[in-house]
Amino acid sequence: MKAARLHEYFKPLVLEDIPVPDLQPDEILVNVKACGMCRSDVQLVDKYFQKYADIPRPITVGHEIAGIIHTIGDLVPSSSGFKEGDHVVVAPGWGDGTCRHCQMGNTQICANVRWPGFGPVGGFAEFIPVPARYLIKVDKSLKFEELAPLTDAGLTTYRGVKKLRDAGALGPDRIIGVFGIGGLGGYAVQYAKLLGAGATVIAFARSAEKLEVAKEYGADYIVPIKGKSSEDIAKELSKLTGRGDLDAIIDCAGAPEMMQLAFSLLSISGHYTDVGLVGDQIDIPLFPRVSREQTFHGSFWGNNTDLMEVMALAAHGKVRHTIKTFAFEEVNEQLDLLRTGDIVGRAVMKF
Amino acid sequence: MKAARLHEYFKPLVLEDIPVPDLQPDEILVNVKACGMCRSDVQLVDKYFQKYADIPRPITVGHEIAGIIHTIGDLVPSSSGFKEGDHVVVAPGWGDGTCRHCQMGNTQICANVRWPGFGPVGGFAEFIPVPARYLIKVDKSLKFEELAPLTDAGLTTYRGVKKLRDAGALGPDRIIGVFGIGGLGGYAVQYAKLLGAGATVIAFARSAEKLEVAKEYGADYIVPIKGKSSEDIAKELSKLTGRGDLDAIIDCAGAPEMMQLAFSLLSISGHYTDVGLVGDQIDIPLFPRVSREQTFHGSFWGNNTDLMEVMALAAHGKVRHTIKTFAFEEVNEQLDLLRTGDIVGRAVMKF
Amino acid sequence: MKAARLHEYFKPLVLEDIPVPDLQPDEILVNVKACGMCRSDVQLVDKYFQKYADIPRPITVGHEIAGIIHTIGDLVPSSSGFKEGDHVVVAPGWGDGTCRHCQMGNTQICANVRWPGFGPVGGFAEFIPVPARYLIKVDKSLKFEELAPLTDAGLTTYRGVKKLRDAGALGPDRIIGVFGIGGLGGYAVQYAKLLGAGATVIAFARSAEKLEVAKEYGADYIVPIKGKSSEDIAKELSKLTGRGDLDAIIDCAGAPEMMQLAFSLLSISGHYTDVGLVGDQIDIPLFPRVSREQTFHGSFWGNNTDLMEVMALAAHGKVRHTIKTFAFEEVNEQLDLLRTGDIVGRAVMKF
Amino acid sequence: MKAARLHEYFKPLVLEDIPVPDLQPDEILVNVKACGMCRSDVQLVDKYFQKYADIPRPITVGHEIAGIIHTIGDLVPSSSGFKEGDHVVVAPGWGDGTCRHCQMGNTQICANVRWPGFGPVGGFAEFIPVPARYLIKVDKSLKFEELAPLTDAGLTTYRGVKKLRDAGALGPDRIIGVFGIGGLGGYAVQYAKLLGAGATVIAFARSAEKLEVAKEYGADYIVPIKGKSSEDIAKELSKLTGRGDLDAIIDCAGAPEMMQLAFSLLSISGHYTDVGLVGDQIDIPLFPRVSREQTFHGSFWGNNTDLMEVMALAAHGKVRHTIKTFAFEEVNEQLDLLRTGDIVGRAVMKF
Repeated sequence: MKAARLHEYFKPLVLEDIPVPDLQPDEILVNVKACGMCRSDVQLVDKYFQKYADIPRPITVGHEIAGIIHTIGDLVPSSSGFKEGDHVVVAPGWGDGTCRHCQMGNTQICANVRWPGFGPVGGFAEFIPVPARYLIKVDKSLKFEELAPLTDAGLTTYRGVKKLRDAGALGPDRIIGVFGIGGLGGYAVQYAKLLGAGATVIAFARSAEKLEVAKEYGADYIVPIKGKSSEDIAKELSKLTGRGDLDAIIDCAGAPEMMQLAFSLLSISGHYTDVGLVGDQIDIPLFPRVSREQTFHGSFWGNNTDLMEVMALAAHGKVRHTIKTFAFEEVNEQLDLLRTGDIVGRAVMKF
Repeated sequence: MKAARLHEYFKPLVLEDIPVPDLQPDEILVNVKACGMCRSDVQLVDKYFQKYADIPRPITVGHEIAGIIHTIGDLVPSSSGFKEGDHVVVAPGWGDGTCRHCQMGNTQICANVRWPGFGPVGGFAEFIPVPARYLIKVDKSLKFEELAPLTDAGLTTYRGVKKLRDAGALGPDRIIGVFGIGGLGGYAVQYAKLLGAGATVIAFARSAEKLEVAKEYGADYIVPIKGKSSEDIAKELSKLTGRGDLDAIIDCAGAPEMMQLAFSLLSISGHYTDVGLVGDQIDIPLFPRVSREQTFHGSFWGNNTDLMEVMALAAHGKVRHTIKTFAFEEVNEQLDLLRTGDIVGRAVMKF
Repeated sequence: MKAARLHEYFKPLVLEDIPVPDLQPDEILVNVKACGMCRSDVQLVDKYFQKYADIPRPITVGHEIAGIIHTIGDLVPSSSGFKEGDHVVVAPGWGDGTCRHCQMGNTQICANVRWPGFGPVGGFAEFIPVPARYLIKVDKSLKFEELAPLTDAGLTTYRGVKKLRDAGALGPDRIIGVFGIGGLGGYAVQYAKLLGAGATVIAFARSAEKLEVAKEYGADYIVPIKGKSSEDIAKELSKLTGRGDLDAIIDCAGAPEMMQLAFSLLSISGHYTDVGLVGDQIDIPLFPRVSREQTFHGSFWGNNTDLMEVMALAAHGKVRHTIKTFAFEEVNEQLDLLRTGDIVGRAVMKF
Repeated sequence: MKAARLHEYFKPLVLEDIPVPDLQPDEILVNVKACGMCRSDVQLVDKYFQKYADIPRPITVGHEIAGIIHTIGDLVPSSSGFKEGDHVVVAPGWGDGTCRHCQMGNTQICANVRWPGFGPVGGFAEFIPVPARYLIKVDKSLKFEELAPLTDAGLTTYRGVKKLRDAGALGPDRIIGVFGIGGLGGYAVQYAKLLGAGATVIAFARSAEKLEVAKEYGADYIVPIKGKSSEDIAKELSKLTGRGDLDAIIDCAGAPEMMQLAFSLLSISGHYTDVGLVGDQIDIPLFPRVSREQTFHGSFWGNNTDLMEVMALAAHGKVRHTIKTFAFEEVNEQLDLLRTGDIVGRAVMKF
């Protein structure tokens, strides 16, 4: 089968022909139809994760996967309801099933987690074997290229916004800021509207073009931040909403300077969730966090329950996408575009 | 001033001319412009509350109050921001300010609570003195007759639906049932859409006419229940949604038989909130509550925070109303109509 | 192997010799060393559950199981860490692994749940096959007869008290009432002390002898209720604590009259958790539940996480037991004693 | 009356004779009997807060106040229950009563908050006027010098530990680390035991002498950290508990290096609460916060509800103190000792 694999860091992926991976008896072989490309794919190539985990190479890249069931392992129980030909998405974060996090459903933070796209099997390949419990069946009317990014870009942001809602930070008289409008931010804006119970949603980004996407997806206001100070922006907020601060923030970038800006705008008792990993440092004053009782939530990908909820939104037609598809052969070219930030929305490989 | 007062139980209110009540220095005198009529007004006349509290008569009835600031007491701090001529609504549940419930903001469940409309001062009167902290300023563009019912019908249901959301019972793959579509249910349907994060909303009622209101306010489905068994309805639900049960229920009626029906439809781990007081008995099997881990929440009126959130929704134009106005002189006639259930939506007295 | 099985309702169990059950490849065969006897065993014999589930007979009774690993199925992963000879307890509630409840860790409320002791395999037998993920390894220094009841009596009460804590009903200035001091109540009192953050713990029961157990386990006060009215008891509470009501209640009985009494003592904003199933009807006034914003939680058994926490308490030596052991041959005699309420604490069968 | 006031930053307080402050009609004049000395008093003198708030001088320092009611303002309602001669503590954080935070009971994070000890009135003075709602009556058997520090050192840590409990981070199988054992840490250790539901409590500090206090107050283990790397300490933890990380952390110091150390030891899904303000910068890696889904909570002082709970613990005799008293005249000397870190436990001025 065709596969795009990382052999050497900082080098293009090798597009090669390799054997279809073995199928374990509790697994299902999925014929990949679409696989989204994520900023973390670029970071993987660029060795960002090396200091946290030394993954043996070659790595089959690609973790936003939708496809069709090809073969079902012998031990997959019939009660699971899967049949050959079913359309499915792949839930991320295959936990060991025994730790406390797995037992509470958060397999994506299991200490022994395995990730498609960060090891021997991945989505930029024609086939991938997946443990049966990490597949979710979807309606055949949905498009593979739209489903794929919902397993990461559209899942990570869902969990992030849900954390803000569950923390009590959203509601009719609250204002939520979405920082960074790239592959993730467009989804975050939509979830902020869906889960916000009437909250005012404001998108912040450097690029005016990307902010247009946010506007289209329902942001009440958009605020370009390039070259503006925190005070400038606070004043702008006051004009727009009558208040100069934000009750809730979801940071889809994670860049140090944007984080400093965002925290400077966070209200008393405000909640801040980071899902972005552009940078790797939090460097902010302590006193206002404490005296204003602010909370920082790290939010990582999503669990099966989150993905089921996202799939329910997709089935109800409540999620919109900014997607451009590309062919398997273009994977390296697209990685380069993503690295330089020249992609609006999400690029999805389609077989 | 004109006032409608209860002198004797089971008798019409007496429409009479009485002195404007004294103003305490920490109070504000409000010129009532509109006052909603509530089922509990009927129950007050019909002695429903007598076994729980023996209120001295005469009682000035009416607790859904919107009006204009007439006079401000000497001790109301200027930091409160109130001015003569401001439009305001009256928050219910005037607590003693010292108990734990008051200190946590839930003044409406203070053991020493005072209620407008259930004592010497009320809303079916030209003037009412209100402690300054129980007034909320509103935009002058909003209509008094629409604001008034938002302080009870539109507040009680908001708190009830919010309890379901905060319990984790709402979300994109969940189904919420609204039982009883009278003065309260129409609001409950709207809040279920606003706070449901994509949840499917189903309205249940005996009357087809009232169900039409629910449909208009966004209910995904409506289910007339007259003459149907629990099994009938479960089958109907299955056809509509693919499932025969409900994850969350808000009961706007509180009638024993409807409660039995509703509980029989409640899912595993389901949450049930009652805000209705048509009946006064819970009589349901125990074992399914325990083995299915269901939760029953009593929810009472709302606190200042809830009301501020409802007012934010109103200001954003996100709440719709089914209202008919009537004149002060018609108050007894309207009580009779409400007693017999012949009112769709909410009747509001307008001066 | 020896097994005690229910062939006919209302008849003694049949003590017989049957083949060791087949072992599935993902299961572990456990050599039962101790099995607690539960009120629900009596109810099973007495057909209490028949209207909710028609279980095929014969049923191997017994669900509070501790033992030693005898054989490990071929597909149990080595990462599970189990070895022959390990001491284990059996987690209850074997879910299907695919529903939302299972994915959130609450396998005990899975719609397709299987229970040891309520089907072909159970604990009043020498061997039982258990899916590997439902075993928890324990230290060999702990006694089997003390571990066994911690998988139901000592687990169900833990989850119940934890629900009260998580609802915010416990704390230094709160009072928690434990109603019913039988096999469950003794544990509930201990957990109320452990999880109560300094809350005052008061035990209520008809029997003075059982109340002594509560006192020994740390109840701050004990209140015999036989022949007393709600008003009597409220007065007694006032004398003991300065207040006549309870912020939190765990009901280990579930008898209708005791439930009425308990609810009449529940404070404003009080939380009530029922884990007892002596009766099968909730029949209480509605208005005080609503106007006082009370919450009723059904709580059922416990999940793996709860059981791991209980085992941690056991390992720390923080749980005490009132246990009498009996031999396999005495099982019917013990059922009779339990039916008539003549057992203080828990009776545990020891092989 | 005598008062110790800050006239110039970095200079000793001026001990002087000034008039008793005026009493507003809704205030109560308290005769101060004891006032604790806090690290933030040193920071106030050392201009730490200047960049956040420019407080007009002179400032009457001292905010941990216990005393006796001397005079009651005319407008304090009799329902408040206060009488001359009552013993009271002063709740901190006098909010404006109108903002959302005040309405939810968190007056200490009101944007318009006033603080005793950070403005014209404070506790290092013979008398202080206090708004009636910020006084809590206490039993006359309790000692003033023990009550005083419970309004900050013993309150701030209570709220911090409670946040960890409410976040679900405490329980029988969890480990909580208390970092920094000065005036606050000794209380934090006790609350970790009281609210931990059986959690293992480990104290970390540089000073062996201070760690002894933690041990005495119930810490299961103590770990001196001077000169040790994160890896050293993780290994030490593994030996003590079988695990090398911590589920929950309360940081009573807030020094940048200790914060880096503490975060490096925080588990997956771990919660970290900071109440310490020794430093003023958070500077930690981002990726582990996100990929391990950690949460940072800023926690500030406490609200009236928290203080009522702390007072309940004190009344139950469940809080122990390490206190040395000093005379009013020694206030500057004590500030110097505190600045150099040479105080074990809390120094309390006693009139």
